[in-house]
Amino acid sequence: MLLLVLDVGDPLFLEPYWMRHSAKSAVVVSGWHRMSYLTNNGFISVELERHIRALHRAVGNAVEEDKFIVFGSGCTQLINALVYALSPDNATTPASVVATAPYYPLYKAQTNLFDGREYEWKGITSKWINSSVVSTKNFIEFVTSPNNPDGLLHKSVLGVKSVIYDHAYYWPHFSAIPAPADEDVMLFSGSKTSGHASSRFGWALIKDEKVYDKVVQYMKVNTMGVSRDTQLRVLKLIKVILGEMGGGGDIFEFGYKALKNRWRKLNEIVSWSNRFSLQQIDPQYCTYFSKMRDPSPAYAWVKCEFEEDVDCAKVLKEAGIISRRGTLFEASSRYTRLSLIKTEDDFDLLLRKMVAVVSENGVSSI
Amino acid sequence: MLLLVLDVGDPLFLEPYWMRHSAKSAVVVSGWHRMSYLTNNGFISVELERHIRALHRAVGNAVEEDKFIVFGSGCTQLINALVYALSPDNATTPASVVATAPYYPLYKAQTNLFDGREYEWKGITSKWINSSVVSTKNFIEFVTSPNNPDGLLHKSVLGVKSVIYDHAYYWPHFSAIPAPADEDVMLFSGSKTSGHASSRFGWALIKDEKVYDKVVQYMKVNTMGVSRDTQLRVLKLIKVILGEMGGGGDIFEFGYKALKNRWRKLNEIVSWSNRFSLQQIDPQYCTYFSKMRDPSPAYAWVKCEFEEDVDCAKVLKEAGIISRRGTLFEASSRYTRLSLIKTEDDFDLLLRKMVAVVSENGVSSI
Repeated sequence: MLLLVLDVGDPLFLEPYWMRHSAKSAVVVSGWHRMSYLTNNGFISVELERHIRALHRAVGNAVEEDKFIVFGSGCTQLINALVYALSPDNATTPASVVATAPYYPLYKAQTNLFDGREYEWKGITSKWINSSVVSTKNFIEFVTSPNNPDGLLHKSVLGVKSVIYDHAYYWPHFSAIPAPADEDVMLFSGSKTSGHASSRFGWALIKDEKVYDKVVQYMKVNTMGVSRDTQLRVLKLIKVILGEMGGGGDIFEFGYKALKNRWRKLNEIVSWSNRFSLQQIDPQYCTYFSKMRDPSPAYAWVKCEFEEDVDCAKVLKEAGIISRRGTLFEASSRYTRLSLIKTEDDFDLLLRKMVAVVSENGVSSI
Repeated sequence: MLLLVLDVGDPLFLEPYWMRHSAKSAVVVSGWHRMSYLTNNGFISVELERHIRALHRAVGNAVEEDKFIVFGSGCTQLINALVYALSPDNATTPASVVATAPYYPLYKAQTNLFDGREYEWKGITSKWINSSVVSTKNFIEFVTSPNNPDGLLHKSVLGVKSVIYDHAYYWPHFSAIPAPADEDVMLFSGSKTSGHASSRFGWALIKDEKVYDKVVQYMKVNTMGVSRDTQLRVLKLIKVILGEMGGGGDIFEFGYKALKNRWRKLNEIVSWSNRFSLQQIDPQYCTYFSKMRDPSPAYAWVKCEFEEDVDCAKVLKEAGIISRRGTLFEASSRYTRLSLIKTEDDFDLLLRKMVAVVSENGVSSI
């Protein structure tokens, strides 16, 4: 019988989303929320928000107590939502959106695609660092920490008021957690917490209520919030993560060990010749593991050191290795990004191919 | 053990979305798709697309054979994606986005929120219908058919090249299906097909490949596609709908009967006095039911007929009935929209309150 599959006794269980303004007079029936646009708290599951806050407290990677939380379809969706929310409503000149190279390419791609009248992409921070314009105009600076592609912890370079801290990788499997992050605007992503990229779930922690209200409005108008099916799945995942934390199934312990080993093996192979170098990440004290920890980045930021190897991604491609060319991150083509967050089989294949290309010691493949 | 919950043997199963460009060299492992950004076909489940096409063929409400399909987080997300895709890339003047009043408010709200440089909201079609500008400038016309709020079938008023047909309500529970829709750009919504509004799923049928490519690009950059959890749920729903179609569990038959009865009861009560009137919808031949069918709209578009009842939503509110004021649809405040797609309990309550307000015959409540 179809209606059982639909979870409720009536397939006409639609409730327009504007009914939230009159929730007092709405008759709430058991099962109603499962299909309606609404949850108890607009588009945001109260239970999921509570568990996300508990996760941040348990991991110690973000101060959540004095922040609002808003969900997005991945932190991808929240990138433009925050640019929109931090831009002035009626400015004579649009806000300038910037990032420090090498940076995650989507900041630029999304700002340019939406091409809003209130903001515009203005390139990399090194262009602006000594400019007097920074103190007189509206700037929105993206800071990715740990950084994608190089895994380093960063702070704002321009010191402007509106900074979007992308902390997608600020979890103990990818990085030391020296202290909980406590910036005004912070992004986190389900895809980097548990690996469920295709569920499309991310969240923002926002201190200022006006910024939060604008982001919520954006989410309503863009997609009327995030899929409830996704919210339910993420809730289950976070419950399991919290339940296993500190025990044998600790996802952060597992991920840290796996990536630490991968990083160590890759470094060892690269050290066999002077053809390539990798970013330097130092061991650091981690409050989650209560000890000094080795690096375990998600990506290797590979540099080709031979003079003739001007296109490092091409050098690796000819060795059968797929990477992301440095120019995509607005860096030199001498750099390229290798992903370490693959299946074990894929990673073993990568190592074998790296051994081959490193062993061509002194011989350029171009 | 946590890893079992994650469906795969390795929580580091992340695969960057740009890997699709090099799918041939990627090692695909069983279970991999469940977490990765990717499906076999970018962000779109091949199996779900196949079932959506089968549903359109079985219902006979859209010609899908010569169209591309793209998914969105509700057809909500696709509204701006299509405005973006139909706008010129490098025009000296932005495209003019218009709709015929009364229209679904989100077209205007979304176009204004994104405030892109390539398009701008230019109001209702009646302002433009005799203007020579229409033939020389880029216009994008929204046509909602059946219309929200009044349930009437519509065609383009301006006859421009770029028309977005929103067919969210073009299903046999809400409307007669005189013939399959065959426009170049058509929107459909899971929330109106099966009622699963909170799953946030919609789709567009698009004839032109260039428009399709731009929408796909928008979806990637906005949210990297639609949640796979949602896609899996919608796939299950469509399988059940198809399986029950024509039998005792036919959702369209059930919905049609329920809404036809609601519409009949509401009309009867309204007819007791001359205080209110409703939109006129005529019986029409429906190819799905192979017979003339009575009206069964999702909404009643109520007009207050008494001279002093200038704010019809207020009149109803004072009688304890929540509706949406006509001005939200850019119509007169003498109109207001009543939702008929409620629980049976809610609808019975609505009828009781309507009986009371209609019985105050000749007496204004203001």
